[in-house]
Amino acid sequence: MHTAAVLTVSDSCSRGDREDRSGPATVEVLRQHGFVVASHEIIPDDQPAIEEQLIRLSDQVNLIVTTGGTGVADGDVTPEATCGVCSKFIDGIPEKMRAAGSEENPLAFLSRGVCGVRGRTLILNLPGSPSGAVDSLQAVIDILPHALELLSGKTQHE
Amino acid sequence: MHTAAVLTVSDSCSRGDREDRSGPATVEVLRQHGFVVASHEIIPDDQPAIEEQLIRLSDQVNLIVTTGGTGVADGDVTPEATCGVCSKFIDGIPEKMRAAGSEENPLAFLSRGVCGVRGRTLILNLPGSPSGAVDSLQAVIDILPHALELLSGKTQHE
Amino acid sequence: MHTAAVLTVSDSCSRGDREDRSGPATVEVLRQHGFVVASHEIIPDDQPAIEEQLIRLSDQVNLIVTTGGTGVADGDVTPEATCGVCSKFIDGIPEKMRAAGSEENPLAFLSRGVCGVRGRTLILNLPGSPSGAVDSLQAVIDILPHALELLSGKTQHE
Repeated sequence: MHTAAVLTVSDSCSRGDREDRSGPATVEVLRQHGFVVASHEIIPDDQPAIEEQLIRLSDQVNLIVTTGGTGVADGDVTPEATCGVCSKFIDGIPEKMRAAGSEENPLAFLSRGVCGVRGRTLILNLPGSPSGAVDSLQAVIDILPHALELLSGKTQHE
Repeated sequence: MHTAAVLTVSDSCSRGDREDRSGPATVEVLRQHGFVVASHEIIPDDQPAIEEQLIRLSDQVNLIVTTGGTGVADGDVTPEATCGVCSKFIDGIPEKMRAAGSEENPLAFLSRGVCGVRGRTLILNLPGSPSGAVDSLQAVIDILPHALELLSGKTQHE
Repeated sequence: MHTAAVLTVSDSCSRGDREDRSGPATVEVLRQHGFVVASHEIIPDDQPAIEEQLIRLSDQVNLIVTTGGTGVADGDVTPEATCGVCSKFIDGIPEKMRAAGSEENPLAFLSRGVCGVRGRTLILNLPGSPSGAVDSLQAVIDILPHALELLSGKTQHE
């Protein structure tokens, strides 16, 4: 059983100016696929704050899924925060998310989300729109458990 | 109305030993898609010189499109120059360019062009061959205006 | 005629606890495509040791192909070692390997192999499983000679 935390990254949601629909939608997809969602928090688009949360959560769960802050606007810094706290990156995961997302919406190619490893925890960035978050997560969720098992120390070849 | 600058990066074209066909072809595609092309210059494959031009042009236009210097040869340094002056990268754009280009020419996978952000300006590297430059640009030109609007401060979700 | 070296990266194979099937399979594919395979060695998943071998081999051959150590487990450090000794990266090559591999096996998206340039030598990381290594290599082997010719100083446009 893998544990997960969801982190909505959005200035407007954290101020309460906009309802967070992506976070709950992400939680639901994770639960449907057997993940135990330990927490869901909303934080602003602030790189040091995001990094601090990622560091804290990586001690608690196997998978951290963020939604929001992956665009090209000035305030979008979720990928930068993720890169700041991870030691390894799995480029094929965002590749697959963008390829899948672009079948519905060509703007999926603008999503800058990454997938990185911190210790034994996987950190995955989803786009901020509810449909973008759900579609991106569904595109890769079947391969995440294998990655999480390898991270937990079960090796493939030995 | 978005403004653009085209930068042909080529030792032989800058010396006048070879005609620059990629630059004018790139200018034409941009104009056909409604961009105001403010300048077109030719510079050699020299990383500091390319960086200097990218820095200067990024104060003047919304989009800088380079052509040339994206290959694997020793002198090909346009991606390195672009990385040197950008703070963010949009990996999905070169992914889409390579995927589209490889339908015509499998060697498109060797193109190392990147797409980065400097301030509010997008910098896009195209390959040096006229057909490679045009095909690559056409593969992504419909999603560039959205990125430019986000960069100019119009946010998507708020 | 291009020269190549194959490097199997695996703790268990280097200890003799597991038979190295990926290395010989990689050698065979290279020979079938006209490469002169100058050496095949097996080393453990140790980043400094891998870097040392890559540096040494890059003085001797045009192409170094590694197999193993591209996964997400703690000990998988072949991409990090490759990044440590290369000055340029050709992202389209792992993109194509993952896209091709995922047609057979969706877990191919977890492979973190890179393709980099050190001096005039290309370094290519393949996954550790025999089928993953062979399928990934076959997906890109037809475009490698062109890259090697450009690296050896034959330029495309001039």
